[in-house]
Amino acid sequence: MVDNQARLDTLFRAIADPTRRAMLRELAAGPRTVGELAAPYDITLAGASKHIQMLERAGLIRREVQGRVHTCSLDARPLHAGAEWLRHYERFWNRKLDALAAILEAEDAKTAAAKPAGKPRKPATPRRKS
Amino acid sequence: MVDNQARLDTLFRAIADPTRRAMLRELAAGPRTVGELAAPYDITLAGASKHIQMLERAGLIRREVQGRVHTCSLDARPLHAGAEWLRHYERFWNRKLDALAAILEAEDAKTAAAKPAGKPRKPATPRRKS
Repeated sequence: MVDNQARLDTLFRAIADPTRRAMLRELAAGPRTVGELAAPYDITLAGASKHIQMLERAGLIRREVQGRVHTCSLDARPLHAGAEWLRHYERFWNRKLDALAAILEAEDAKTAAAKPAGKPRKPATPRRKS
Repeated sequence: MVDNQARLDTLFRAIADPTRRAMLRELAAGPRTVGELAAPYDITLAGASKHIQMLERAGLIRREVQGRVHTCSLDARPLHAGAEWLRHYERFWNRKLDALAAILEAEDAKTAAAKPAGKPRKPATPRRKS
């Protein structure tokens, strides 16, 4: 259980950075060398290496070394655990959207009831889509 | 776009901690005061407040103040953005599982082919489920 918690910590920390998320997106297209991963960013190779190490620690990257060339490839499986954790809350954001829809419906009904018959104060506003 | 990236950073950092994840789980059952949220942990109220502030910054908690009582409630909507980001990688972890299943199938086939006919070395092993 503690292990699972630690894994989620490492995973969420790893993806809490735009450069690291962009690296994962790049790797989704295929394996890349460390140099290729670093190229789009205004960072040193050492800086890129730190990002890559955080992704490795989270199990999101596997690195193959051939001589001086380090090739990274994506292992998306740890993201599955993150998605599973988030899934528990899905019913809550759905419920919020349902509640919002209900509020808008109720407001629309109130507006319709309050409007003096035969003498609209202003042109009918388009009905908000729920 | 930058805003979205910053929101994902704040969200993933907020949930990259077991105490904060546990607080969210607690709030999933209903609103809680800051004291109630802090109670299960061996942390000071100030420590709990810091965690709560990180959750607030990520938009995951709303705080209602009545006199001295601060009541927190869950707003799960930002988690939706996180789930959406993760969803892009779903096909990758599925693909890995497919690949694993294929390897196991191939191994089973090899084992069956290598087994000398009429003289099983050991009782048939149950077929691994793919």
